Amino acid sequence: MGLFSKDIKTMDDLFVHTLRDIYYAEQQIAKNLPKMVKKATDAELKKGFEMHLEETRGHIVRVEQVFEMHGVKAKAVNCPAIDGILEEAEEIAGDIADDQVLDAALIAAAQAVEHYEITRYGTLVEWAKKLGRSDCAAVLEKNLKEEMATDKKLTGLAERKINLMAAE
Amino acid sequence: MGLFSKDIKTMDDLFVHTLRDIYYAEQQIAKNLPKMVKKATDAELKKGFEMHLEETRGHIVRVEQVFEMHGVKAKAVNCPAIDGILEEAEEIAGDIADDQVLDAALIAAAQAVEHYEITRYGTLVEWAKKLGRSDCAAVLEKNLKEEMATDKKLTGLAERKINLMAAE
Repeated sequence: MGLFSKDIKTMDDLFVHTLRDIYYAEQQIAKNLPKMVKKATDAELKKGFEMHLEETRGHIVRVEQVFEMHGVKAKAVNCPAIDGILEEAEEIAGDIADDQVLDAALIAAAQAVEHYEITRYGTLVEWAKKLGRSDCAAVLEKNLKEEMATDKKLTGLAERKINLMAAE
Repeated sequence: MGLFSKDIKTMDDLFVHTLRDIYYAEQQIAKNLPKMVKKATDAELKKGFEMHLEETRGHIVRVEQVFEMHGVKAKAVNCPAIDGILEEAEEIAGDIADDQVLDAALIAAAQAVEHYEITRYGTLVEWAKKLGRSDCAAVLEKNLKEEMATDKKLTGLAERKINLMAAE
């Protein structure tokens, strides 16, 4: 979007802009997940991040599908929010001396990422419906549901195991 | 935290660091909400942001209370995540030409903020419990519940009114 022009004039423009924002975000997440896999110590957590990387690649394909359905070019726009969330994850990971504590921090960082995606997909689904594009909403809802399921899984793993080990 | 030292050695260090992160985030949110009040067109949305500003001030006081209960200095650390989320909100708002579409974008931006707070407070509550500080957990849970209620209210307002007007 231009620095000196107000390029978003309609709800449709806003929908497309936000789709481009989550497209960028998913790509950055896919780039960052291998680093998280590498940093994680717990085997179950490592595996969880690996699985989520696969899922993220699927989400990117679904977003591209929505671009196509909606007749606009698949394009990413900068998303300072996800950049900030990922930067913070990197910073904190670099500050931690203990492997178990690092695992706990990695889960928390991953959940911050999930929550960003949940809020964006939640909004996109709702906007798509209001724009009369329930077909696009249905595709985006698949991503939303998977992000929610991942967040829940991470909470379960944290409560059942990782946080207990880290607090010992 | 130091650039060249790994200052977080225990779960307690991580808890305190994350408390300082949300302390900073709440302060930035309190600084930004008046701008959102000003930008919003819909009276109900304006009022909602004003009420949330009051609530945010209360959250800051509660976080300070937890610092005191835990015997550590109330101090903020930089939080690139909230900076990015707020930067993105500002950018998008500056790109929108239509008042109703702007209201829809403001709600979405506010929900991204809420989700960041929800994930952080969710983590902090859980960590406090694991550290045997259910007293701190109880205070943090009050903030968590209010953030969740605000997010729900924003969803309701968006679905019932703001998105409908914006999509017209």
